[in-house]
Amino acid sequence: MTVRLEDLPLRDDLRGLTPYGAPQAPLPVALNVNENSHPVPEEVADDIIVSISQALRGINRYPDREFTELREGFADYLGHGLSREQIWAANGSNEVLQHLLQAFAGPGRTAFGFAPTYSMYPLLTRGTGAQYVTGTRGVDYTIDAQDAAAQVADARPDVVFLCAPNNPTGTPLRTDVVEAVYDATDGIVIVDEAYQEFAPREERSALTLLPGRERLVVSRTMSKAFAFAGARVGYLAADPAVIDALRLVRLPYHLSALTQAAATAALRHAPTMLQMVDDIVGQRDRISATLSALGYTPYESWTNFVLFDGVDDPAATWQGLYDRGTLIRDVGIPHSLRVTAGTEDESTAFLEALASL
Amino acid sequence: MTVRLEDLPLRDDLRGLTPYGAPQAPLPVALNVNENSHPVPEEVADDIIVSISQALRGINRYPDREFTELREGFADYLGHGLSREQIWAANGSNEVLQHLLQAFAGPGRTAFGFAPTYSMYPLLTRGTGAQYVTGTRGVDYTIDAQDAAAQVADARPDVVFLCAPNNPTGTPLRTDVVEAVYDATDGIVIVDEAYQEFAPREERSALTLLPGRERLVVSRTMSKAFAFAGARVGYLAADPAVIDALRLVRLPYHLSALTQAAATAALRHAPTMLQMVDDIVGQRDRISATLSALGYTPYESWTNFVLFDGVDDPAATWQGLYDRGTLIRDVGIPHSLRVTAGTEDESTAFLEALASL
Repeated sequence: MTVRLEDLPLRDDLRGLTPYGAPQAPLPVALNVNENSHPVPEEVADDIIVSISQALRGINRYPDREFTELREGFADYLGHGLSREQIWAANGSNEVLQHLLQAFAGPGRTAFGFAPTYSMYPLLTRGTGAQYVTGTRGVDYTIDAQDAAAQVADARPDVVFLCAPNNPTGTPLRTDVVEAVYDATDGIVIVDEAYQEFAPREERSALTLLPGRERLVVSRTMSKAFAFAGARVGYLAADPAVIDALRLVRLPYHLSALTQAAATAALRHAPTMLQMVDDIVGQRDRISATLSALGYTPYESWTNFVLFDGVDDPAATWQGLYDRGTLIRDVGIPHSLRVTAGTEDESTAFLEALASL
Repeated sequence: MTVRLEDLPLRDDLRGLTPYGAPQAPLPVALNVNENSHPVPEEVADDIIVSISQALRGINRYPDREFTELREGFADYLGHGLSREQIWAANGSNEVLQHLLQAFAGPGRTAFGFAPTYSMYPLLTRGTGAQYVTGTRGVDYTIDAQDAAAQVADARPDVVFLCAPNNPTGTPLRTDVVEAVYDATDGIVIVDEAYQEFAPREERSALTLLPGRERLVVSRTMSKAFAFAGARVGYLAADPAVIDALRLVRLPYHLSALTQAAATAALRHAPTMLQMVDDIVGQRDRISATLSALGYTPYESWTNFVLFDGVDDPAATWQGLYDRGTLIRDVGIPHSLRVTAGTEDESTAFLEALASL
């Protein structure tokens, strides 16, 4: 006799749920989860292997719980006068956000985000026992500073998520919105800059707002610009007091010695690792232009992906592309689909497949 | 002006807490956190590097969310007819236990353990919002099956922890206790076999009890016997329905491609990796015998460490050893200290330092 999940003493709030996750289908052109299609350059991979080999010699011992060298690497990379006391990291930015919610949200508290936005925010929030409250966006998914501040002041959340630029829409979110929202709340304001490296270089990061704002947190990831999705490394910058709070909720030794070695080595090669960013931005803009020419309506994007409107039947278009070997993402927004900017060949394959439908 | 932790909107239940963690002091002889003092054998390290190099080629992509190959490796290693559908893994056994608590405990529920036991159980339980209830042990920290079943029936917990053998006491816990406790509860019973490889070979693992017990979970770690503490790999075996429950609470892609590659490679060399186990058991028994000869009272241990009683002033003895370059653990049990069995040289250094006090 086979036991079913509902036969177990599962928590009531988990009953009937299904696991989160995009399909992992082995298609030739995978542009569905905003990965970086460019492999890590060989010279960087070689140096990472040297660092991992050294770490393996002491792998019988627990890793540095404070991941000191890695935090120094992130501080150097981010600049803006940051020091390692202002840096935290975890196994992917989802775990970074989970640590923040465990410290500042959890049972009896609320977190707030402007829909549509990163679909993990509500899941992470509810996973820590907090309530998730949804705000609204203006035309083309933009956020107006004054309106955002009013919504936040009204909702009085303990944690606010600002995805800048926004996933899954690609929409820019400028620092005036961050300033206005920060002033409208006594809670923690998380600016999720997972895709910041794909924004125009002259635009300001929320990192510039950190001095004097002890409740402001700027999170980043190595998954996108650094082509390191498989290594699971997210990080953040904030006041050292915020870092102290995260030490209370993290599991001891949460970052393995292999992760620390790999990420530290990759950061030493930041300029090389980021060489593909310009290529990807070029493909993104080409995809947007071609989508317009094909009669679709792409939204402005500061990320490595494009959300486009004007799709009569997203499920049918998604399936048509799938049948032609190209995987993109139906994010559940009516008449819209999302595609990651891949290599030139991948982007061409997508555009040709779409045109052929 | 410096901001303090108490100036932030931290959760009330976290106020005043300090982070968990043993001191990480750079002493020549570190026998405080039950690591395996033997490095990974060179031929295994070489093979791990080959696997990691292959994983690095695709590190720009998210890892296999189901870590299929690694789960097959664990099923093969554990034996007892287990298949990969019955295996789960995470970043250290702490995260494995956290996943179990998130699925089956959490707010409004309770978890139960027999004190003294692994100090992370209450921390992990409270970290997920559940209450922790403490049961008692008999003479020399043993657990009697009938008494344990009565305590559990009385407490009616949602999750029971049975640490077998027990940390920090080393005490054996036989399968009759597991059977009795399982029958006394409708909750999940977790048998934490982190140190099982150091128990006598002829003793039965709780893995033998899995058939027909869908609420039974047996957790393990690669940190101890496999000398892999730095790689952060814990795992468990249970009914496939339990695995389905854990998929609901894990973060997507929680196990990096590097972790999966390293652990899968190490499991291919299980016999070589486990060669040091006999050495360590030999040193453990030598430490116990010498402690007795020195007038202390070591408890029976089936682990890679020894808890010994008869220490007049544990803090002073700990400091005396520290000053002589040897780090052991004061686990807060009156008149007692805990020492990990190291290499022959490390164990000798500890015993000589202790004798010299």
